[in-house]
Amino acid sequence: MEEKQTFIYRRSANYYETDQMSIIHHSNYVRWMEEARMAWMASLGVDYAEMERLGVISPVISVDVKYKKPVLYGETVDIAVTVKKYNGVKLSLGYEMKNVETGEVTTIGETSHGFLKENKIISLQKELPEMHSMLEEHN
Amino acid sequence: MEEKQTFIYRRSANYYETDQMSIIHHSNYVRWMEEARMAWMASLGVDYAEMERLGVISPVISVDVKYKKPVLYGETVDIAVTVKKYNGVKLSLGYEMKNVETGEVTTIGETSHGFLKENKIISLQKELPEMHSMLEEHN
Amino acid sequence: MEEKQTFIYRRSANYYETDQMSIIHHSNYVRWMEEARMAWMASLGVDYAEMERLGVISPVISVDVKYKKPVLYGETVDIAVTVKKYNGVKLSLGYEMKNVETGEVTTIGETSHGFLKENKIISLQKELPEMHSMLEEHN
Amino acid sequence: MEEKQTFIYRRSANYYETDQMSIIHHSNYVRWMEEARMAWMASLGVDYAEMERLGVISPVISVDVKYKKPVLYGETVDIAVTVKKYNGVKLSLGYEMKNVETGEVTTIGETSHGFLKENKIISLQKELPEMHSMLEEHN
Repeated sequence: MEEKQTFIYRRSANYYETDQMSIIHHSNYVRWMEEARMAWMASLGVDYAEMERLGVISPVISVDVKYKKPVLYGETVDIAVTVKKYNGVKLSLGYEMKNVETGEVTTIGETSHGFLKENKIISLQKELPEMHSMLEEHN
Repeated sequence: MEEKQTFIYRRSANYYETDQMSIIHHSNYVRWMEEARMAWMASLGVDYAEMERLGVISPVISVDVKYKKPVLYGETVDIAVTVKKYNGVKLSLGYEMKNVETGEVTTIGETSHGFLKENKIISLQKELPEMHSMLEEHN
Repeated sequence: MEEKQTFIYRRSANYYETDQMSIIHHSNYVRWMEEARMAWMASLGVDYAEMERLGVISPVISVDVKYKKPVLYGETVDIAVTVKKYNGVKLSLGYEMKNVETGEVTTIGETSHGFLKENKIISLQKELPEMHSMLEEHN
Repeated sequence: MEEKQTFIYRRSANYYETDQMSIIHHSNYVRWMEEARMAWMASLGVDYAEMERLGVISPVISVDVKYKKPVLYGETVDIAVTVKKYNGVKLSLGYEMKNVETGEVTTIGETSHGFLKENKIISLQKELPEMHSMLEEHN
């Protein structure tokens, strides 16, 4: 039996991402999740820039973040990306960020996404069958 | 019987907040919610900058955002802020953003917050009794 | 003789714009300059969103910022926008930010801009004669 | 005779850094320059986070950016950092960004920095002699 591999995206905190509490401002994790998501898609062979050129966009429907421990400037996190749910038209992804030095979970996130072409919801199976298969596999 | 008044924070979308989907990037709404929250606190007589100088910080514990309709550059939203729950140590706020021209709800948000002094969770009733009373009133 | 009036854009510093030096991060002033520029254009009757819909974009060619005094969270600046130079194809704008409470100059900026349509440099006089006249007037 | 080696910091453009012109928003290059600068300092053995803990901060005095070619989402630049001038109390750095695929120069930048301790300008030679020697060497 094959085990599913978790995709990990490594990210160091930038100085400009801190705020005057001397921690990474909470809005930035939403951006880190996007970076991790795009890198995860690339690892599956999906080029988001190319997908957009084909007229398919994937707007974010919802974002949830739970802040467990602050991340400080100079620290690095490993962001694990997993498929939480995929039903052909909607995709939910989970994110777990761990401080690489301490191993502590700093942040838990979830995003959900639709897929649109010419402003209409599309079936990924029809429009991007390869991506559909890959998401099915990771579901 | 007195009716609770909803606080409204008006915000215009900036060009630098757009992305190449030609909509406001989803991470920015988290920042707009912070702006609305700070303005709402100021409207209650709570000066967050002053609170920090007194050593009290209020980290964000969680953020949830639901994206109903995109906001475009040149558009303006009214952000209504309401207290969802307050139990003396934790505060949950709700946000509803409406396009001022169309009246459509664009975005629904929720944040929860703790209150810390010298890295310890504090009771707001003890440390900031006036703020506590005001939050009780709006609960 | 008529005196040229200076356009002023008022901006309050947001919490998420601070960094761990407890000042507004230097990159954000570039964004404030954009906000002030767009508001100034709107005050001249130029709707940038509309201009883009007509196919004209105005990329930034250069940005210079001199940081005199930090701006802190809770502070507000008045940003004066002036035309430094305009020759029909290139526009240079100057920005002076003053702390509204102390009157001190905090930041001096300059940006220069071209105008493109279908990736070609255009003459504003031909393409947008009204905007051209207004820029001439403020030059 | 030893040749001075140029430090290179590689950076991929993020989706959230784009704007509706479908290019990286011009303000973000100021942030990329900060990332490159911090990485360059780290390569010289200077830990900026540690420096701040010792009470030394290095505020940005000025930033200049010239935009030659846009950078698009999905593209990667190599940012070369060089010392332009160092006189013991003020440091000027130069930045040249090149699209790694095309080799074209996309962006040229310059920043200047002071060094403060307890709000007073300090001599780096006295306070951080090792960093001073390294900057002298790269001057």
